[in-house]
Amino acid sequence: MEDLKLALPVRIMSIYEFQEMMRRLYIKRDSDRGIEGTYDWLVEEVEELGEALKGEDKEATEKEFADVIAWLASLANIVEIDLEKAAVSKYHNLCPKCQQTPCNCTF
Amino acid sequence: MEDLKLALPVRIMSIYEFQEMMRRLYIKRDSDRGIEGTYDWLVEEVEELGEALKGEDKEATEKEFADVIAWLASLANIVEIDLEKAAVSKYHNLCPKCQQTPCNCTF
Repeated sequence: MEDLKLALPVRIMSIYEFQEMMRRLYIKRDSDRGIEGTYDWLVEEVEELGEALKGEDKEATEKEFADVIAWLASLANIVEIDLEKAAVSKYHNLCPKCQQTPCNCTF
Repeated sequence: MEDLKLALPVRIMSIYEFQEMMRRLYIKRDSDRGIEGTYDWLVEEVEELGEALKGEDKEATEKEFADVIAWLASLANIVEIDLEKAAVSKYHNLCPKCQQTPCNCTF
């Protein structure tokens, strides 16, 4: 029960709400930096994730995953794309290529 | 009201549930491909997003955003990291650097 209570606060964040939170925190900085600069930062965070994956530090790797989704949400904010809608429109219980679950693509 | 009904199905996908959906769809393929190959695919999707951002096709850009978060979730699955927990642990209504909302970092 204690575990469940501890787990609850991090089990209810929709992709949409995460993106809105990033908007509340960073929209001015993100807008000032612009699309190209924010994209470059996303690329840098993906590179840092790649480095973390080569190591053994799981907590550091978790932080890099957090940074990648955070910068992806920031980038979506400044280009006015709804990340949850985009994600669920393409991926919703079926593989968009073979239309099966689990994916049964043959390539 | 019609808009709200249309919007509802894509407003309730938590980051956790999206990652679990990706697990149901792709865990075997992702595991077979491995961490390095899946990371390389994530990098490729980020590059495709960068190309889409240079164009004018918003629908294509949305699909690239979808692919990046999908591959990020796939990668998190095979390294056994909870993407929502990681994201919310670092970003939760305060900038992790300046501890303010909105972010007021001076750099």
